[in-house]
Amino acid sequence: MRIIVDAFGGDHAPLEILKGAALAVAEYGHTVILTGDEAALRRLAEEQHISLDGIELADAKDVITMEEDPRSILREHRECSMAVGLDLLSKKKGDAMVSAGSTGALLIGSTFFVKRIKGVSRAALAMILPGDNGPFLLTDVGANAECRPEMLLQFAQMGNIYMSKVMGDGTPSTVGLLNIGTEETKGDPTHVEAFQLLKESGLNFVGNVEAREMPTGNVNVVIADGFSGNVALKTMEGTAQMIMRNVKRVFMKSWYTKLAALMIKGGLKSLKKKMDITEYGGAPLLGIAAPVIKAHGNSNANAIKNAIRVAADFAASGAIDAITAVVKETKDPTV
Amino acid sequence: MRIIVDAFGGDHAPLEILKGAALAVAEYGHTVILTGDEAALRRLAEEQHISLDGIELADAKDVITMEEDPRSILREHRECSMAVGLDLLSKKKGDAMVSAGSTGALLIGSTFFVKRIKGVSRAALAMILPGDNGPFLLTDVGANAECRPEMLLQFAQMGNIYMSKVMGDGTPSTVGLLNIGTEETKGDPTHVEAFQLLKESGLNFVGNVEAREMPTGNVNVVIADGFSGNVALKTMEGTAQMIMRNVKRVFMKSWYTKLAALMIKGGLKSLKKKMDITEYGGAPLLGIAAPVIKAHGNSNANAIKNAIRVAADFAASGAIDAITAVVKETKDPTV
Repeated sequence: MRIIVDAFGGDHAPLEILKGAALAVAEYGHTVILTGDEAALRRLAEEQHISLDGIELADAKDVITMEEDPRSILREHRECSMAVGLDLLSKKKGDAMVSAGSTGALLIGSTFFVKRIKGVSRAALAMILPGDNGPFLLTDVGANAECRPEMLLQFAQMGNIYMSKVMGDGTPSTVGLLNIGTEETKGDPTHVEAFQLLKESGLNFVGNVEAREMPTGNVNVVIADGFSGNVALKTMEGTAQMIMRNVKRVFMKSWYTKLAALMIKGGLKSLKKKMDITEYGGAPLLGIAAPVIKAHGNSNANAIKNAIRVAADFAASGAIDAITAVVKETKDPTV
Repeated sequence: MRIIVDAFGGDHAPLEILKGAALAVAEYGHTVILTGDEAALRRLAEEQHISLDGIELADAKDVITMEEDPRSILREHRECSMAVGLDLLSKKKGDAMVSAGSTGALLIGSTFFVKRIKGVSRAALAMILPGDNGPFLLTDVGANAECRPEMLLQFAQMGNIYMSKVMGDGTPSTVGLLNIGTEETKGDPTHVEAFQLLKESGLNFVGNVEAREMPTGNVNVVIADGFSGNVALKTMEGTAQMIMRNVKRVFMKSWYTKLAALMIKGGLKSLKKKMDITEYGGAPLLGIAAPVIKAHGNSNANAIKNAIRVAADFAASGAIDAITAVVKETKDPTV
């Protein structure tokens, strides 16, 4: 597999991206195409003694930052490392693309350069999250603040395929609708209508899911409008961080509690790993005509390595073809 | 203060409600009016050796359950313990009302029996939640799945008054809008418009708040539409529960980790108390013409005692008059 990686996207770019690419080459044998300032990357690799074996460089002098208007990827930043990567992907110079840069720019850039799958009304951002009984997928987590019921149906079709083909063994996923109650009349008119569409969709639809139940992981794919999905995702992050800060405070209180912390260090470490969403390799953009993975802005080398692995799995899974087929069958007449 | 309490609402009714009422009488000196089957309550008090000093009983043979249609409080359950309590409140036989029963029924019943404050378009449910830097108020957490921008403005006016007058020392609260990004153009048209209304409201508006930042408690009052507010609230609950389950699993692994657990028992206990939302005494219904507090369905005696304390504080604070005044000034022309 040939995976394109935006070397200048993310809080720890380019060093951690370069390191992650080298790790992925060594561990999985994929070829990585790094986009960004070629001279700077060569210099960095030399300074840090990182081998460029299995890594190709695609020069791009410009960078789009997190703070900039995402739409500028179509204008003044049309030659940035992210845009160059997406352009290569659209020309099939690579099998998939990874970026830890601006989510908005990646969404707009993917839609513009790589295009949506025919019949998909909107691309959705999906996130794999840790649950008690295994990871689950939440989508949309912020690409579409406003959603029509037909869009939610498509998110479910795409999420089901991603979860079963890329993350699972091909068994259809259970699908739930994130709502404020379990009865089918709950929520606003959009959610009430989406419930009916999902019920008749042929998917393994288990009904409405309350946010409280989500972390059990009993439902494999949780469908949300981009507004409440984003709120749910960030609330999980914020709550987990708050609790971890407070637990740490408890352990740091005295020599006695510090000793206790030492005694359960191993267990806490594996818990932390379980909770760490970067272990799952980033967020796929569902509905784009080629595999695009958004890695967390905060990604370190290991997170980038994981994202590259997942991007390759995405490309190898046949998920894009499967989405194309299901969308063709059940095309939203308003698109 | 005379606080009306629905003795037959909640998972642990009537015993824990009765116990909580007795605790509140003993600790705060309030009079509690318990609504529900009088004979059953007298029998229970005798069996359990609970003193009925300072407790009055208002007979109500019927009960509305969590599973029933909330609207049935206006029809077949019009004589249930909750309805009888709200009727007493509307007749000023008590200063405030507490129920751990069905949230939907309490909202509908309060609006019907007690009425909204003149000029309030919709009552909102508000929740006090634990934050790193002190508790914060989140509203609406589920009363209104669909919101107009003017409603969000009113929630902010009411939340500000509640937080500063009932929970604080009268200092105006900082107010933020729960949104999917910090820029003022973020979110759907409702949130974009609400941002502008809040900016011009004269409130101490700090802008959009992302769900991730909420648990810091840096913003005292977080305004949300009832759909995403409900999702945020239940995601917090679900995430906290999942982490606690997993931490427990780490501690239960061996005699060695169990020993470590014992060593930090005190710290974990106070952390659990800090995270326990029932410590903050339940959720006020904002916009109703008299103080109504929704206690958690799972409330034990201590939670009920706390809810009675907060209900009395709410009644004593002058918050209802303050809300009446501010809503009169800035009346939504569409109501």
